[in-house]
Amino acid sequence: MTKNPYQADLDSNRANYEPLSPLTFLSRSAEVYPDKTAIVHGDLTYSYREFYARARRLASALTKHGIGEGDTVSMMAPNIPSVLEAHYGVPMTGAVLNTLNTRLDAEALAFILDHAECKLLLTDREYSSLIREALSLAKVKPTVIDIDDSLAESGELIGDMEYEAFLATGDPEFDWQGPVDEWQAISLNYTSGTTGDPKGVVYHHRGAYLSAMGNAVSWSLPKHPVYLWTLPMFHCNGWCFPWTLTAVGGTHVCLRKIEASAIYSEMQRNKVDHMCGAPIILSMLINASEEDKAKAPSGVKFMVAAAPPPATVLAEMDSMGFDVTHVYGLTETYGPSVLCDWNSDCNE
Amino acid sequence: MTKNPYQADLDSNRANYEPLSPLTFLSRSAEVYPDKTAIVHGDLTYSYREFYARARRLASALTKHGIGEGDTVSMMAPNIPSVLEAHYGVPMTGAVLNTLNTRLDAEALAFILDHAECKLLLTDREYSSLIREALSLAKVKPTVIDIDDSLAESGELIGDMEYEAFLATGDPEFDWQGPVDEWQAISLNYTSGTTGDPKGVVYHHRGAYLSAMGNAVSWSLPKHPVYLWTLPMFHCNGWCFPWTLTAVGGTHVCLRKIEASAIYSEMQRNKVDHMCGAPIILSMLINASEEDKAKAPSGVKFMVAAAPPPATVLAEMDSMGFDVTHVYGLTETYGPSVLCDWNSDCNE
Repeated sequence: MTKNPYQADLDSNRANYEPLSPLTFLSRSAEVYPDKTAIVHGDLTYSYREFYARARRLASALTKHGIGEGDTVSMMAPNIPSVLEAHYGVPMTGAVLNTLNTRLDAEALAFILDHAECKLLLTDREYSSLIREALSLAKVKPTVIDIDDSLAESGELIGDMEYEAFLATGDPEFDWQGPVDEWQAISLNYTSGTTGDPKGVVYHHRGAYLSAMGNAVSWSLPKHPVYLWTLPMFHCNGWCFPWTLTAVGGTHVCLRKIEASAIYSEMQRNKVDHMCGAPIILSMLINASEEDKAKAPSGVKFMVAAAPPPATVLAEMDSMGFDVTHVYGLTETYGPSVLCDWNSDCNE
Repeated sequence: MTKNPYQADLDSNRANYEPLSPLTFLSRSAEVYPDKTAIVHGDLTYSYREFYARARRLASALTKHGIGEGDTVSMMAPNIPSVLEAHYGVPMTGAVLNTLNTRLDAEALAFILDHAECKLLLTDREYSSLIREALSLAKVKPTVIDIDDSLAESGELIGDMEYEAFLATGDPEFDWQGPVDEWQAISLNYTSGTTGDPKGVVYHHRGAYLSAMGNAVSWSLPKHPVYLWTLPMFHCNGWCFPWTLTAVGGTHVCLRKIEASAIYSEMQRNKVDHMCGAPIILSMLINASEEDKAKAPSGVKFMVAAAPPPATVLAEMDSMGFDVTHVYGLTETYGPSVLCDWNSDCNE
């Protein structure tokens, strides 16, 4: 029994509370840092003002096409700007973002599209032949929007409209509404199905907000980090970093192809200071040419997940000037849930 | 209407969710950084292991004395370790911490004790004559526990028991329970009553957690900051910094008397890197002797609240090597709610 004389006031707060949502990170950063670079993709850059306007255009266009609360919008793409835009524009309509693992086969993709009850699919042209096959196998018949990314090298356009034309139908000042309830779904991620069909894991706005903030605090993120996307955004929503980086006004450096030479070039060109990825990325960085390695800025913080890397890999990364933090998580935990929190006494 | 096929799973989460509470910051830091220095008070230091054990002893002792959910525990003290302990030990019992402004008169204190329905009062000996008068005016008859702080210079003991003896009755491994509901009250703060009687503002566990994390992210707090307490902890629960600093494994440097010489000495002795305070503290630092000023470590981050300090004060602080961030808030917003988020373009 609650006896405190003020508890009744708190209880009345519940009815009028501000739901936690990571969507507020973008509107805040657009207001506070409008001219800061939010996204880099090759020679293309978007400021926070532009990032926010494009996300609102997407939300507006989706709404005009009948997408609303609880609808699933799927996406098949590498780490390009439109995936960041979708992490805001899709849930701004109340819909749920379902990013697809680009390494799956047509059968698995068809299963997911059906299971997720996909209403609209955003798909990069590089994957169009695979997606065409998946759609022929699936029961759902989503609206298909092609992403004709300027850095894509191949692939037909197979959809009903192209992404930039679709955005052009949207209002850059769209009056989006956050969730009424912070437990509302924001995204739907499928595990890879090692023991059968892929299994869906649904994230809510509250969890995405808390995980995004938890990443910032536990990694001691400074303001305006420059972050290179090697971790796929389709993987646990990039461990919530599309939201985390935006919360601290960071720069998202996109990268279509994950290969050592491109990674080192983008690190040098953009003065990257933070990145996340699987252990394979560490091996890739270590086994690169000396010419590539010389391009790395010193002191880059690297968050690596999965089983702890071997001591020799950690030692090699250290000698190359990287500051590696090991984490472990699950799709079910929004990405990292435990972290090797370095005890500075170990330096002594 | 929610249409997403998974929303039902999320809705069922509500019944079994983990309530947000800043109490988890202490248990985590005690587990992860047991030997790090949590609290410094003159020559006394407590590790995180000790801080947590003392907070649990307090919770256990309070429980044995009949304190439980919704009860108000008031506290009259300067910035000493027991106030930090009370920020955890009191709500670990489900009770509500009511820190009293040490600058109020007996009438105002009596009003608050009655209005808050105080059940137990922790009081530093320095304030015993004032508290004796307040208790004679108040209708409530709380249990009174004296804090016989080693650095207190005067004051009688007026209570039923002394704080350390009280702690000794408690179990350092007390099995405390967090709130069942994150909207449960954690603290009760009174505004100074410029327009009448003091007005109570009640904080809940959810708000304290979110504000504490917000402080860490918006001030880009590193791991293990060394923080000097010049801001009174009785003021909006020290803007939630008793919880923020603990979340990042920081060191709380206590200080009974807020005067320039003591501030500079503690800064030097403990290698302080962060502090918060009112504009008066800036003036105090600026008007100190050159001998004192020479003791300041360089690059100390200072968060100052209230109206923006005059440009001359900011320039002077800058020339002295401090990095000042201006914030503004209210008791009703758990302390700072807006922050001058420095745009690095202004440096160019």
